[in-house]
Amino acid sequence: MNFPRSLYFEDLHEGLTFKSPALTVTEDSIIRFALEWDMQPFHVDVQAAKSSIFGSLIGSGLQTVMLTYKLYYQTGIFHGTALGGLGFEEVRFLKPLRPNDTISVDCSVKAIRPSKQIDRGIVHISLKTSNHKDDVLLVMTLAVLIARRPV
Amino acid sequence: MNFPRSLYFEDLHEGLTFKSPALTVTEDSIIRFALEWDMQPFHVDVQAAKSSIFGSLIGSGLQTVMLTYKLYYQTGIFHGTALGGLGFEEVRFLKPLRPNDTISVDCSVKAIRPSKQIDRGIVHISLKTSNHKDDVLLVMTLAVLIARRPV
Repeated sequence: MNFPRSLYFEDLHEGLTFKSPALTVTEDSIIRFALEWDMQPFHVDVQAAKSSIFGSLIGSGLQTVMLTYKLYYQTGIFHGTALGGLGFEEVRFLKPLRPNDTISVDCSVKAIRPSKQIDRGIVHISLKTSNHKDDVLLVMTLAVLIARRPV
Repeated sequence: MNFPRSLYFEDLHEGLTFKSPALTVTEDSIIRFALEWDMQPFHVDVQAAKSSIFGSLIGSGLQTVMLTYKLYYQTGIFHGTALGGLGFEEVRFLKPLRPNDTISVDCSVKAIRPSKQIDRGIVHISLKTSNHKDDVLLVMTLAVLIARRPV
């Protein structure tokens, strides 16, 4: 299952950075996501959103989280070497996701440490999601178990 | 847009608790969610999952997060009074989501404080998601802006 570019725990160091592909978020995708997961008026109703604190339709913060994770995953860096997730820390919605934002994710290895199990390590990865205007929309940190290279 | 049960900032106090409805998570929903958002082998491939550290198919931690939020939202407690989200703190995947788990969410108001804007306050809500065997799968805290009651 390992892709050519996949990294093992031994390949990582604090400060290692990588960049995701980009994705344009349409008004349609904002409304469809919110219909399924977060049906607040300012995520599904263009008219109601005008009188919200945002002034117009915005994407759910959860959509920004999910797209951030998906773009991170699409880097392929940990395909086959990610053994499981431990959680997130400090997910901050800094600016709302807007229709027609093209977003991408700057990823960096924030901390690495061995696990009690000898076949893996614990890695904290900081993710920063920006749009095409360089507005930072979201920051969050993932904690994941990454395999050591088999001996 | 306010539902009869919606609470305003003034209605809240630290320690207030409420409970979500419950939901059964099928194998099919685990695989479909992962196909869209987190296509790791142990989330989409029953055979590959047998040799993962989990021993069998599990749901993405992101699916537990999203279902937790959706069940919380379905309480209706903040329909029309939630003005926007600020982020999450300390999302911890304590046990994996498994096919046929029936999950529900215990919600509690952890902290409340006024905002600089006089029409709203900042509320931290702790969410704890358990299955029908009382295994705790996830804990997380939301930070949300809640409207004050209009004068």
